[in-house]
Amino acid sequence: METINIGILGLGTVGSGVVRILQSHADKISSITGRKLKVKTVVVRDMTKKRTVDLDGVTLTDDFEMLINDDSIQMVVEVMGTVEKAREYIKRLLEAGKHVVTANKDLIATYGPELTKLAKEKKCDLFYEASVAGGIPILRTIVNSFAADQIVSVKGIVNGTTNYILTQMNQNNVAYEEALKDAQELGFAEADPTNDVEGIDAAYKMIILTQFAFGKDITLDDVKIEGISKIQLSDIKEAKRLGYNIKLLGVAEKVNDHITISVGPVLVPQTHPLATVINENNAVFVTGVAVGETMFYGPGAGELPTANSVLSDIISVTKNIVMGITGNSFNDYSHEIKLATPDEVKNPYYISLIVPDKTGEMLKLTELFTNAEASFKLITQTEANEGFAKISIVTHAMTEAQLLKIEEGLKQETDVELLAAYKVLEKG
Amino acid sequence: METINIGILGLGTVGSGVVRILQSHADKISSITGRKLKVKTVVVRDMTKKRTVDLDGVTLTDDFEMLINDDSIQMVVEVMGTVEKAREYIKRLLEAGKHVVTANKDLIATYGPELTKLAKEKKCDLFYEASVAGGIPILRTIVNSFAADQIVSVKGIVNGTTNYILTQMNQNNVAYEEALKDAQELGFAEADPTNDVEGIDAAYKMIILTQFAFGKDITLDDVKIEGISKIQLSDIKEAKRLGYNIKLLGVAEKVNDHITISVGPVLVPQTHPLATVINENNAVFVTGVAVGETMFYGPGAGELPTANSVLSDIISVTKNIVMGITGNSFNDYSHEIKLATPDEVKNPYYISLIVPDKTGEMLKLTELFTNAEASFKLITQTEANEGFAKISIVTHAMTEAQLLKIEEGLKQETDVELLAAYKVLEKG
Repeated sequence: METINIGILGLGTVGSGVVRILQSHADKISSITGRKLKVKTVVVRDMTKKRTVDLDGVTLTDDFEMLINDDSIQMVVEVMGTVEKAREYIKRLLEAGKHVVTANKDLIATYGPELTKLAKEKKCDLFYEASVAGGIPILRTIVNSFAADQIVSVKGIVNGTTNYILTQMNQNNVAYEEALKDAQELGFAEADPTNDVEGIDAAYKMIILTQFAFGKDITLDDVKIEGISKIQLSDIKEAKRLGYNIKLLGVAEKVNDHITISVGPVLVPQTHPLATVINENNAVFVTGVAVGETMFYGPGAGELPTANSVLSDIISVTKNIVMGITGNSFNDYSHEIKLATPDEVKNPYYISLIVPDKTGEMLKLTELFTNAEASFKLITQTEANEGFAKISIVTHAMTEAQLLKIEEGLKQETDVELLAAYKVLEKG
Repeated sequence: METINIGILGLGTVGSGVVRILQSHADKISSITGRKLKVKTVVVRDMTKKRTVDLDGVTLTDDFEMLINDDSIQMVVEVMGTVEKAREYIKRLLEAGKHVVTANKDLIATYGPELTKLAKEKKCDLFYEASVAGGIPILRTIVNSFAADQIVSVKGIVNGTTNYILTQMNQNNVAYEEALKDAQELGFAEADPTNDVEGIDAAYKMIILTQFAFGKDITLDDVKIEGISKIQLSDIKEAKRLGYNIKLLGVAEKVNDHITISVGPVLVPQTHPLATVINENNAVFVTGVAVGETMFYGPGAGELPTANSVLSDIISVTKNIVMGITGNSFNDYSHEIKLATPDEVKNPYYISLIVPDKTGEMLKLTELFTNAEASFKLITQTEANEGFAKISIVTHAMTEAQLLKIEEGLKQETDVELLAAYKVLEKG
């Protein structure tokens, strides 16, 4: 049986997982591809670090040029992380005619179009299934199974850290800070959690999902981003009382003939499949004109799940090499579509406020909402600290422009504190 | 742009959906495949029947030979149903070098290996994504994304009719007969519901899923099948009280190095993702060694969802024609694996019985279970009709052989009526 030699850039969690699966599932992989897949060279930064995988017969080096100069290596897996360095390496690998598989979402979200173009020119494959939602094969599913359909919306729980924190807050009634600490101790959150808790990680994934679902390249600036670090336990509880779980959702959806992309806390009805996705799990809910509502659920991270997605790419490359058809883009859907304006995007909102507990406050609020032509669906007033009341409002659907007007109005009221203004997913 | 001509066999619900999507999403399909896909000829049984789709420019005929004799038709979609006739037609189409897409699960479950072999010989594609779980792209996902993984189990809610009926029983406290009548009125169940409610339809789908997940051809005789028509409302309620929803699950799983395949009512913990799949929806829960737990959820039937799966096959065939790589099997995983014996397959069981309400009955039962070396985890006794008690038992894990011994013992006791003996999915 012919051998296909593979190089690996980086031997952290995912890299180790790739080596492990290639070793333990070698028979099945060979039976499917008709090829023996062999890790020939692994490039690492620190040669002295202790490794947990069996590297018998593998060349371990800190010299990247060993990949470039070895013509017997047809495919390289990039799992080293970072953006600029990875970009430079991948460009050089593609220039050298090597197929590339990467799990690097920041890189693809930032330089995807450039690298895709280069890969195509060089007749190389460039796959990155593992860059979104770890073990869930969502990218390949969109390419293969939604090709004939028109996707209307993609709603994703695509960040495990924040979903874990929100699950703890929701199930165990703990505040954000405590849930974060817990997540850090369990290894679900990093020491500096900013990227996850502020929604940046989810936004990168939504950039890639938008490219696949709507055929449109966007940048981080096109995504409205809000994180979870300001979510109050009292709002989690109030949402629950109303029949919702608060989730950090990435949403990319069509509005009229435009699209809007956002990441932020959303009230999800407890009867909605996304509400049942707990802990560090991920799920992507895709609605198509023809197919209706579908959901793809699984682990969003972890050594073996992510490595498995890398492996599915490796096998795709291998099959393409065998059939002589490398060089086709991962996603060949491209479509001219504009971003929606704040006037177009309509949602019901959950708004919560702390106001002084005195006569006339509710009148002031009501006037403010009326000026923005927004209407209440539901209002609850409860006691807050001494002399203050907490008011929670669910509005009827209104535009982002209306919400902005309300938010600006509230800022003028120095004695009113806006705690939350979250989208509400309507009950089906 | 080059045109690829398509023939369609049958113009019922799915066939009409295929025509509709090809018309309404023509631009997107062309932008992805680089080809214009045109329905040239549709073969129907009854030419006089009124059609709801636009057939402008399409030849409608009742003469199958028009497909065979038209060299310009490269691909035929079989959505006419039936087994023997469809088998004969598809064989002739493949012999004539035409690619075939079918949604016919009975056919594929019965004659899949024979037709796959013929397709390969003739370098034709034969795809059948729509045959399992309607709009959920589960077959292609297993092929593409679990290729490097070892699947441990596939658990599916793969029949919408029975899931609708069980949802009604569970949510609205109605008995089986009433829920069935309701499903029939809404069009979710057929006038003769046998195939669905007795688990046959689900078993056919599990045969195909087993082929994809474990690389093994099995027949209906290899599947242990129980339907839902004997499920008592009292057991649905008791299960609910214990924290479970009763679902009709198809299960194909590895036990030691063997596999076991069954369809039957299972108590699913309410916290399990499968428990939240309600009404006519389908879901397939796949566990892999590397990836862990994943679930694919969506509509299990319906004109457009099923047609969308057919379309994903049509697009795959088209891409393969363009790249000149037709003739590869849909699933190229094949593996020697034996079926497990009843001694190997272990599960906890939920057992419910009606017994005379008199001294010594419980002792008799306890002896019977002890003789089979089975042990109770939980027992509830409630009043049944005058002079009778209902006993519900959850056992610790035991083998199918032990269960059989208990069932046989109970049969000897003429005054004991066995209502249910269902598997229990353990809480995670």
